[in-house]
Amino acid sequence: MSAVRIAPSILSADFARLGEEIRAIDAAGADWIHVDVMDGHFVPNITIGPGVVKALRKHTAKPFDVHLMIAPVDPFLQAFAEAGADCISVHPESGPHLHRTLQTIKALGKRAGVVLNPGTPVDVIDHVMDLVDLVLVMSVNPGFGGQKFIESQLPKITELRRRIDASGRAIDLEVDGGVDRSNAARVIAAGADALVAGTATFEGGPSRYADNIAALRGL
Amino acid sequence: MSAVRIAPSILSADFARLGEEIRAIDAAGADWIHVDVMDGHFVPNITIGPGVVKALRKHTAKPFDVHLMIAPVDPFLQAFAEAGADCISVHPESGPHLHRTLQTIKALGKRAGVVLNPGTPVDVIDHVMDLVDLVLVMSVNPGFGGQKFIESQLPKITELRRRIDASGRAIDLEVDGGVDRSNAARVIAAGADALVAGTATFEGGPSRYADNIAALRGL
Amino acid sequence: MSAVRIAPSILSADFARLGEEIRAIDAAGADWIHVDVMDGHFVPNITIGPGVVKALRKHTAKPFDVHLMIAPVDPFLQAFAEAGADCISVHPESGPHLHRTLQTIKALGKRAGVVLNPGTPVDVIDHVMDLVDLVLVMSVNPGFGGQKFIESQLPKITELRRRIDASGRAIDLEVDGGVDRSNAARVIAAGADALVAGTATFEGGPSRYADNIAALRGL
Amino acid sequence: MSAVRIAPSILSADFARLGEEIRAIDAAGADWIHVDVMDGHFVPNITIGPGVVKALRKHTAKPFDVHLMIAPVDPFLQAFAEAGADCISVHPESGPHLHRTLQTIKALGKRAGVVLNPGTPVDVIDHVMDLVDLVLVMSVNPGFGGQKFIESQLPKITELRRRIDASGRAIDLEVDGGVDRSNAARVIAAGADALVAGTATFEGGPSRYADNIAALRGL
Amino acid sequence: MSAVRIAPSILSADFARLGEEIRAIDAAGADWIHVDVMDGHFVPNITIGPGVVKALRKHTAKPFDVHLMIAPVDPFLQAFAEAGADCISVHPESGPHLHRTLQTIKALGKRAGVVLNPGTPVDVIDHVMDLVDLVLVMSVNPGFGGQKFIESQLPKITELRRRIDASGRAIDLEVDGGVDRSNAARVIAAGADALVAGTATFEGGPSRYADNIAALRGL
Amino acid sequence: MSAVRIAPSILSADFARLGEEIRAIDAAGADWIHVDVMDGHFVPNITIGPGVVKALRKHTAKPFDVHLMIAPVDPFLQAFAEAGADCISVHPESGPHLHRTLQTIKALGKRAGVVLNPGTPVDVIDHVMDLVDLVLVMSVNPGFGGQKFIESQLPKITELRRRIDASGRAIDLEVDGGVDRSNAARVIAAGADALVAGTATFEGGPSRYADNIAALRGL
Repeated sequence: MSAVRIAPSILSADFARLGEEIRAIDAAGADWIHVDVMDGHFVPNITIGPGVVKALRKHTAKPFDVHLMIAPVDPFLQAFAEAGADCISVHPESGPHLHRTLQTIKALGKRAGVVLNPGTPVDVIDHVMDLVDLVLVMSVNPGFGGQKFIESQLPKITELRRRIDASGRAIDLEVDGGVDRSNAARVIAAGADALVAGTATFEGGPSRYADNIAALRGL
Repeated sequence: MSAVRIAPSILSADFARLGEEIRAIDAAGADWIHVDVMDGHFVPNITIGPGVVKALRKHTAKPFDVHLMIAPVDPFLQAFAEAGADCISVHPESGPHLHRTLQTIKALGKRAGVVLNPGTPVDVIDHVMDLVDLVLVMSVNPGFGGQKFIESQLPKITELRRRIDASGRAIDLEVDGGVDRSNAARVIAAGADALVAGTATFEGGPSRYADNIAALRGL
Repeated sequence: MSAVRIAPSILSADFARLGEEIRAIDAAGADWIHVDVMDGHFVPNITIGPGVVKALRKHTAKPFDVHLMIAPVDPFLQAFAEAGADCISVHPESGPHLHRTLQTIKALGKRAGVVLNPGTPVDVIDHVMDLVDLVLVMSVNPGFGGQKFIESQLPKITELRRRIDASGRAIDLEVDGGVDRSNAARVIAAGADALVAGTATFEGGPSRYADNIAALRGL
Repeated sequence: MSAVRIAPSILSADFARLGEEIRAIDAAGADWIHVDVMDGHFVPNITIGPGVVKALRKHTAKPFDVHLMIAPVDPFLQAFAEAGADCISVHPESGPHLHRTLQTIKALGKRAGVVLNPGTPVDVIDHVMDLVDLVLVMSVNPGFGGQKFIESQLPKITELRRRIDASGRAIDLEVDGGVDRSNAARVIAAGADALVAGTATFEGGPSRYADNIAALRGL
Repeated sequence: MSAVRIAPSILSADFARLGEEIRAIDAAGADWIHVDVMDGHFVPNITIGPGVVKALRKHTAKPFDVHLMIAPVDPFLQAFAEAGADCISVHPESGPHLHRTLQTIKALGKRAGVVLNPGTPVDVIDHVMDLVDLVLVMSVNPGFGGQKFIESQLPKITELRRRIDASGRAIDLEVDGGVDRSNAARVIAAGADALVAGTATFEGGPSRYADNIAALRGL
Repeated sequence: MSAVRIAPSILSADFARLGEEIRAIDAAGADWIHVDVMDGHFVPNITIGPGVVKALRKHTAKPFDVHLMIAPVDPFLQAFAEAGADCISVHPESGPHLHRTLQTIKALGKRAGVVLNPGTPVDVIDHVMDLVDLVLVMSVNPGFGGQKFIESQLPKITELRRRIDASGRAIDLEVDGGVDRSNAARVIAAGADALVAGTATFEGGPSRYADNIAALRGL
């Protein structure tokens, strides 16, 4: 089995020096750079848009794992692809045409992800498995950093792992929200192979990033 | 008469090192720091939200002049006030209750501004003059940096100057969009006493910021 | 000149016994019963709908002066007409077709009103004067009772009075928000001929209603 | 097994004297007071809001079972909690964040419910069972009183009963819409342990309330 | 087993002479006339509305199979019924009240259909089977003609056929999107008993319509 | 002075044979072909979209005068330009960025128009005069054909004529709604130089088109 991927969320980084923060987590062993985009409509917070993503692109060669918490989402896919996203993940609740959104992401040459809110039933992925490279399970309600892991998502992770394995497809199963060194092992045991970590990466400052990331891997 | 205020828009700064950029324009003589907030709904672009504003606050003591291109706007006023905005400017088109929005900004202890899109009639300010500290005239259509100044806004600036002077109130008249050293004098002559400048501030890199800002003042 | 009409707003009545309250203000000399309908979208509060209006209809023969703070408004006009409204007033911001809305109200056989928010320019009535029976000036931002009268609306009242008189039409000019015995005379002097009064009617309980209403008339 | 709870819906009460009606159904044996809140957007009718709920609170000590047919729902949760709701039930279709809405209701110290429209699949509750105190099955399409019971909801009630029992949690299963003495026994047999009853409670007037409620219990 | 029904979509006809086109496909053996209604909101295209349907009604006696890609849909059901629709199909994503929409269509005396987008889970039909005369599976994302058949919909068709057969009800299973003579047999084998065909009907011009339709039947 | 332009609205033509209808009105002397596009959101009716416009383009060389009653409008401008529109007219109420919309139309190489609903104040054109080729005054509320001319629009036409003349620009002033041979002369006298005519063109059938159009010219 391949090692778990760690995707630090820049939502917990210092927004005043994002380039430097990204270089630091890159050096500290991050696998992916997780970018949380919020529009104040799909979620009650606004974070950053394609212009920021573009400015950050030159600071690392690691993949940009972009989570779009926006609705509608289709009008912005091209902008994020051009800004440097490698994987673009979307919510089924962002509009009535999830399949089309995923088709568009693939046509832009990017990896495509589907995100499940804590309350979202798992069957939303039933008919889009052939388009999906990543399933992202939210273990907090999206909108803000620093929230507590929702335990009821563990069986959902396991069920999604079962469906992914049954499909025979190479689909990543990522978990985002309240993941830290106290629960990472359980999340991985439940079936996750990628972990988003905001606070758990950035707490303690740059000198701790490498240790923080290693701890999430259980090292 | 007081000198014109120059408000560099960080929309044209390097988003990867915004703290450093803000310190540089502060040192280069910026009067205000202009922050363009876009939600992808009021305008077809997403930029930055309150988290970024908060992170930048510690990098300068200059006033943050925050232009909210979002709708609805009321649910976000408190977040921007707490993040460190000094002046919060809003569009009448952001909702049916412009007067309430301005009341709320004032109740938060901040300066309040009204923004007029290029096509917006001037009478939208008629009944809110007693709440307004700033009128912002858009001389491009909001959403993206680097656009060309719309000449037809000059007589609108003059008309607004006339109404402000007639009111006897201390209301700033700011102009945003395509303002550069080639037209700044005309904009000021038309009645503006504050200029937003994105490209015109940041072009040429940090070594040019002081000269760029001085040039906008006609120095 | 005819006496000013007093329209107690049931927003300040006891919602647990509205029928009794309405009979009491009827007996106390109310000219109209003012009904504030809010949908939680046009304004950030929900009050009452057509079912409540219908239940109240049998408790008085006085006109029901219904102020619709809802958007869209067209789908609900018939329900309020059938529930017993005598005058239905709407906001220009409720949709792009104010003229059609007013046409519809008139076609339902009801009096039609246009409501101006505190920030709304007066020219919204320019091309609907022939359909309008009432102009309602909000002297607070709509949504909640108990707010303070906004002084800047006095010149707006005067300007609207001038336009109504110039039209030669029999259009009522009503003012709603923070009107009480301390300012009623000034509001009337500015040009109003109808006053909505919530707190100012109901404060002190039923034994005070007649005195409260008389005080608003300056008696 | 505990007896079925009867929750008269005040949608069928006399809105002109709601306090008196509530005292009457309290005395007649109602277990809960069911309050139908509609905003004219989630459903095509407007009923009553938090101000009415607050006014009614002092007329009974029985729990207020508040069904919010509004969207968005999050901005109004606090107002209904403060107005006196004991249980607040929401629709998954009211927004993309059902889990967050339920978290918020629980954080306000209230019981939380999920409502299923007649067409809504049962798996919407799969991942929120740990937050839910009540599942409400609509056996008519929400919006208006006096509709006919939809028979196809009986197997859905049974399926939900099965899932609730399997969870081992103390979750009430309530049914709302067209329930009367002719079908109450079947609804209970299908698995319901709480019945909303509007017309079936209030028909015949106050002298009939106790008999009407008893009949629903099969007494 | 009954023969498959062929429903040419007029989306691929010549809009300048729709009456003539409809007479031609009627003569060429079309079973139903498929009408694609788009409002530019539910899908990113606008096609035709009730006025066009009404004008076409007199040109054939064949059933009009109207697919409404609009949201909200309820305000337009009566207009399409009166314009001459025989079957009206709607998306569950068009609003929160699918069951009510289907009730309304049936109350208008028309056949009612539910449409599943490529990504839509099959359980949306679980609780509306008693109201449904037709299930329409989209094998392209709706909005434009001429797209490629999505292979992943074949197992969904089979699953829906299984559910329909299990219900014992007479429900048509129609497939729309990229169906042509190369894949029609597979679509039928998967369980479809009605095929929408735009390009596949109209390509080659009127002289080919009869052959084109026959080819879809495998003749 | 140039002769008035007559623009038959195809809203009153036979939608089953639009190509033939357009050739007939072309031959009958129509100056422009007026196309009413409705999306069921900006107005409560759906008519036709870009696909129909494109199909009609080959049937005449006369200019297509396209009136977009849709919101939002920006996402559809390119489609109508490519479909063959010569002039594209939009409502200020379609969004907050009228100036941008007009810029976009001009950038597409088309003539740009602004449409005023019956209740819309005239100052909406104040700051877009340099972008506008046509001002369209609605003399009925848009949405349906066959309505009665609203007399109160005559002074508005006169006021707009005055503003256009004062601008010194070559801007057409077109009037749409209930215009017929009984009032055309008055509409022209008020200042119009272009008349949309639906019923007034098509009544009596093709043999009458030339006479009908001539009558509108006062011939």
